[in-house]
Amino acid sequence: MAPAAPKSGDVIFASVDRVNAELFTLTYGAIVRQLITDLEEVEEVNKQLDQMGYNIGVRLVDEFLAKSSVSRCVDFRETADVIAKVGFKMFLGVTASITNWDAEGTTCSLILEDNPLVDFVELPDTCQGLHYCNILSGVVRGALEMVSMKTEVTWVRDMLRGDDVFELQVKLLKQVPEEYPYKDDE
Amino acid sequence: MAPAAPKSGDVIFASVDRVNAELFTLTYGAIVRQLITDLEEVEEVNKQLDQMGYNIGVRLVDEFLAKSSVSRCVDFRETADVIAKVGFKMFLGVTASITNWDAEGTTCSLILEDNPLVDFVELPDTCQGLHYCNILSGVVRGALEMVSMKTEVTWVRDMLRGDDVFELQVKLLKQVPEEYPYKDDE
Repeated sequence: MAPAAPKSGDVIFASVDRVNAELFTLTYGAIVRQLITDLEEVEEVNKQLDQMGYNIGVRLVDEFLAKSSVSRCVDFRETADVIAKVGFKMFLGVTASITNWDAEGTTCSLILEDNPLVDFVELPDTCQGLHYCNILSGVVRGALEMVSMKTEVTWVRDMLRGDDVFELQVKLLKQVPEEYPYKDDE
Repeated sequence: MAPAAPKSGDVIFASVDRVNAELFTLTYGAIVRQLITDLEEVEEVNKQLDQMGYNIGVRLVDEFLAKSSVSRCVDFRETADVIAKVGFKMFLGVTASITNWDAEGTTCSLILEDNPLVDFVELPDTCQGLHYCNILSGVVRGALEMVSMKTEVTWVRDMLRGDDVFELQVKLLKQVPEEYPYKDDE
């Protein structure tokens, strides 16, 4: 039997359980505020948000593969495209676009013009170093690691810092061969 | 012109922006884990979740009133009904039922059989005192305070503690007359 054709992000998004985006936005805002209070250093908040996102990405990839009928992508280029068109739509309800590929096809940028995480958000002057959406970079990194791609994910543009879009640069560091990942002596 | 008729929770939920429920569930789980790590005491985590929920409830009430076309409720009984049928549906995508009214009509219970916050959640033995969903009690308390009702909101049953449903008791303490809430000397 031929594998099921991959579904579009719109179709999947319409079929999954959802909650109100404003509730999500405010809940996320509450986390960020909490971390700023607890950790004090903006750099530490960035790290923690990234780590939380990573843990979420590692879990979300299962739902993604189950619901999207996406089969294994042939290369990083195709994977990036699927994340932008299907992944973002399926989870956040918005589509990202892909741009700025380097010649080797190992670095590209995800562009988000619309981002439900930042509705009603303005950064106070004391938080200028904050990557408010750092949970997203962590999610992308965590999800990619589960399909054997080690990446470095960094914000290049950020609407909360006055840029016109969000630009998330994704750099493929290493494609890990698929095998049982733990050695006995670890 | 007659005021617009209140819309059902289903109709409103279909019209608002939404995100994937699993993303929300995992994000909420990440907050709870973070608080447990930072605060150590389960009682403190309960308090903090409640406070975060309160802050969210205070904000959500605006969207609720704007989108639901609900006009002022005549009494606490009607208010509780609207929260259960319209509010929970509009934000979490599930409906609560109302039960256990006391004779005075000032205490009742919201019953949730389905709760997207707890999908995949199991409490470890070290967290037995945790009210994992305490953000919800805070949201209800905060939202009610914005419509001039001071309440006490407590969990009576909790599926994570082995009960068959979630039961949230809401007790009206005081109905504050509507006026500018701060005195000059405060």
